Amino acid sequence: MSESCIHPGTVWLVGAGPGDPDLLTRKAERLIRAASIIFHDALVGPEVLAIAETGTRLVPVGKRAGRHSRSQEAINGLLVQAAKDGERVVRLKGGDPSVFGRSGEELAALRNAGIPARICPGVTAASAAAASACLTLTRRGAARQLVLVTGQARAGERLDLDWDLLASGRTTVAIYMGKAAAAGIARELMRAGLAASTPALIVENASLPSEQSLSTRLDLLGLGAAALSGDGPMILIVGESMGQAEPGRPSAGMSRQPLLAERS
Amino acid sequence: MSESCIHPGTVWLVGAGPGDPDLLTRKAERLIRAASIIFHDALVGPEVLAIAETGTRLVPVGKRAGRHSRSQEAINGLLVQAAKDGERVVRLKGGDPSVFGRSGEELAALRNAGIPARICPGVTAASAAAASACLTLTRRGAARQLVLVTGQARAGERLDLDWDLLASGRTTVAIYMGKAAAAGIARELMRAGLAASTPALIVENASLPSEQSLSTRLDLLGLGAAALSGDGPMILIVGESMGQAEPGRPSAGMSRQPLLAERS
Repeated sequence: MSESCIHPGTVWLVGAGPGDPDLLTRKAERLIRAASIIFHDALVGPEVLAIAETGTRLVPVGKRAGRHSRSQEAINGLLVQAAKDGERVVRLKGGDPSVFGRSGEELAALRNAGIPARICPGVTAASAAAASACLTLTRRGAARQLVLVTGQARAGERLDLDWDLLASGRTTVAIYMGKAAAAGIARELMRAGLAASTPALIVENASLPSEQSLSTRLDLLGLGAAALSGDGPMILIVGESMGQAEPGRPSAGMSRQPLLAERS
Repeated sequence: MSESCIHPGTVWLVGAGPGDPDLLTRKAERLIRAASIIFHDALVGPEVLAIAETGTRLVPVGKRAGRHSRSQEAINGLLVQAAKDGERVVRLKGGDPSVFGRSGEELAALRNAGIPARICPGVTAASAAAASACLTLTRRGAARQLVLVTGQARAGERLDLDWDLLASGRTTVAIYMGKAAAAGIARELMRAGLAASTPALIVENASLPSEQSLSTRLDLLGLGAAALSGDGPMILIVGESMGQAEPGRPSAGMSRQPLLAERS
């Protein structure tokens, strides 16, 4: 509990979770309230930022696919300078800071500058997407491992994933930021041996009121991803665990259309 | 927010996070307060359970390695019966319910009985362990994928993991409940080609005041796991990302001894 205060000159990398402010941890909530300045990703929504105290400076440093508002180096520099200025710094990231958040580069920059840094973990998008669909990411007999990868390549590079690993069976594969690459990912997974009929779940804006999701199958992953109309972050989850029938649950706020799967 | 109430006769599978009650989500906190009965794992500590209202029935149904206090079938039956009795049921699990929590079996039982079920996600142990050590699970250039597996085999069976794939490089492997199998896991990963010097992090009781952790290397994983003195849940994380030098951070509540690594 005592960790929820911020010593001036310290930088906390804080996981904001998948989007729903109710999915912030209690610790993240306190750190957001304790901050004097918050550098936040574009994926961190206004409901989360509204938790900050009046007077806290909110600095968007967001990167979204194809629209990098600041370079990583510039962000690193801002964090170091704010800490040197004696601010109580929160670097607020969607999901969990340790999962595809480029936290490694920020931690290295802080370390090189002699700035103390800490991490507050968060709920990662795969957990939130599965929860919304009332599905589990691992399941006895169906999935012995869960693999998290990102569907975003470095600028100018091909997506460099180990398709044989991902297609090895009894594996649940969660692809973060997978919208643009969905069709290509499906093609590679099938080429590596995964059945076209492997169940897949597509969730955009997981946990938010604008959440959309679709239960489909691997060979329709590209179509499904294109069919969701939003421009929010999308996670693709592929594996037999996504084929669990859904228990009776209200469908409010979510469209789970089996349409694409039925058309196949 | 409206989801934080519980309709009588509904079962919520709720992630309690890694242990620190501050790492509960705000939603989990509300659901715990709203429950009339809570079935909880052994790994859910008293600080978390203290959040429940006076009068809420707390029913331990915990399973710990080698000490199964109730069969999974018995737990399923308890959940179904409590829902049929019109209780506001919370099934409280350590970490995230979707990650090695056997939620699939409980969801199937509820579905078969026509009971509405929902999931509230939580912070999983790998995220918390990395955060405590101020390390990231993925890092550009070092890890393109994060694989979560469990170190517990079914009773009487050998650990059935895909060693070649776990050892395939640029991969961070997080092994849940890995204490007993640590030496064997290291042996298999090295046999599959992973370097003996691959950095590894061992964390017991991640996020709790009793947390102990050790930065070591793959060939010393078994020794390191045995060296930690607690009997709490242990996570092993193996991969180049665990070799990031640590930024200046206070070490309160944590012993990060490089001893074993130096002795090698």
